[in-house]
Amino acid sequence: MATTKPSLKLTHEGALKALAGAVAKAEELGVAQNVTIVDDGGNLLAFVRMDGAKLLSRETSMSKAITAASHRQPTSRLNPADEIKLAIAGGGRLTNLEGGLPIVIAGQCIGAVGVGSGTGAQDVEVARAALAAIDAEDQKP
Amino acid sequence: MATTKPSLKLTHEGALKALAGAVAKAEELGVAQNVTIVDDGGNLLAFVRMDGAKLLSRETSMSKAITAASHRQPTSRLNPADEIKLAIAGGGRLTNLEGGLPIVIAGQCIGAVGVGSGTGAQDVEVARAALAAIDAEDQKP
Amino acid sequence: MATTKPSLKLTHEGALKALAGAVAKAEELGVAQNVTIVDDGGNLLAFVRMDGAKLLSRETSMSKAITAASHRQPTSRLNPADEIKLAIAGGGRLTNLEGGLPIVIAGQCIGAVGVGSGTGAQDVEVARAALAAIDAEDQKP
Amino acid sequence: MATTKPSLKLTHEGALKALAGAVAKAEELGVAQNVTIVDDGGNLLAFVRMDGAKLLSRETSMSKAITAASHRQPTSRLNPADEIKLAIAGGGRLTNLEGGLPIVIAGQCIGAVGVGSGTGAQDVEVARAALAAIDAEDQKP
Repeated sequence: MATTKPSLKLTHEGALKALAGAVAKAEELGVAQNVTIVDDGGNLLAFVRMDGAKLLSRETSMSKAITAASHRQPTSRLNPADEIKLAIAGGGRLTNLEGGLPIVIAGQCIGAVGVGSGTGAQDVEVARAALAAIDAEDQKP
Repeated sequence: MATTKPSLKLTHEGALKALAGAVAKAEELGVAQNVTIVDDGGNLLAFVRMDGAKLLSRETSMSKAITAASHRQPTSRLNPADEIKLAIAGGGRLTNLEGGLPIVIAGQCIGAVGVGSGTGAQDVEVARAALAAIDAEDQKP
Repeated sequence: MATTKPSLKLTHEGALKALAGAVAKAEELGVAQNVTIVDDGGNLLAFVRMDGAKLLSRETSMSKAITAASHRQPTSRLNPADEIKLAIAGGGRLTNLEGGLPIVIAGQCIGAVGVGSGTGAQDVEVARAALAAIDAEDQKP
Repeated sequence: MATTKPSLKLTHEGALKALAGAVAKAEELGVAQNVTIVDDGGNLLAFVRMDGAKLLSRETSMSKAITAASHRQPTSRLNPADEIKLAIAGGGRLTNLEGGLPIVIAGQCIGAVGVGSGTGAQDVEVARAALAAIDAEDQKP
């Protein structure tokens, strides 16, 4: 077998474009959000906290993004019966809260977006706008 | 659009006045309390642990204050179905325990008070006394 | 004396403009950077990690920004004889590394920028570009 | 030998009086300070951050107070050759920075005060004012 395999990486230009798409949608909805973009390793690429967004939702948006990148699927798909056990055993970052979506381009998960401060539905809508801004595959929650 | 926007800051004199109001109410109720005052960024402004107050309730009073400042509303308003998920994904500071109230003056949230060591009802009563001492908007729990 | 005092807040629009100014300068210099913008309370407002920037320099850029906001002056002005003691006693965030500058507008420190991944001189140059992008006072290191 | 021995405890009334003494002296000097009062166990009793005090000096004032309570002597008396080793091995709180003084009454160390944000000399002067406010033994640095 091969020692290496090709992969795609999300650029900072892509990350900032996704961020801008999320902010524009949040402004349209009239909701202040924290928006986090991570790479496929769950490491922070870009972030913004909008005026009036809840301060602690920075951390929830981060946890949502990291979880979506890790699991390569929208957050909120874990079995509710397991979610707290997984959250604790996963070191605190693993969350089942709505608002985290993987960034999938050309069939590869190259990162994720996490949004926090609105309702769950608003968080998801803003996260989908981030995906749309960079032509990533839409992720129905 | 603008780079800055005007806002209000809570002074240390205001914070100490709020602290004194809380202590006076706690003495009237005969309950020893931890009282934490934070600014709108969740950073500690003033604190007192009264004689006999539970030591670890320092941390709960801190979490209550930070949460109330972050969310700009009394703690204990989160959906109980989400509160543990939010607490974990929010890094531990986000709490739904009673006893955290935002400090709102002239319509702006300029900080928060968190009280811990009594019953939930006592904690809220003492936190409301802190608000009253500086003419902040009352916060019904 | 007063319970509150007026102040200015950095908007997310201002923070994103500062971020873009820093990225443009880093591209011009041909150096990949981590750029962190915090508010006056040291809380994260905006961030980007450029393609190829050192991963761990995210944390140094964060520490530089928080220190510059805390001390309202460029990092690297502490007495070298004290800097390690201060770093440890300050909980790890307090740093004397070059590359953190306060954001001062209308005479008020409303936040700070921290840059990390290049040389100290590059970090400072990129941080100054962030300030210039929002017409903040220049900060000679 | 006996199972118990009598001791003195600093009350919250004493702690708040010490805090007020420190604030009054800091205002007289025209320097904004973080003032931390801990009990003989190094646990937080009272705190205030004055308008304009350095945010991260909250942590240094805390470290100074805990160290002075622990060692029952003013900070800055450690052998400089050992201070960094002690700081690290001591878990980060042990510091040799000026500005931490034990609170000694009737020959017993019942707590400590830590002050941070000014120069070392200002920090010590403000800490001594805290001691004077509660008739504790003066501590020449």
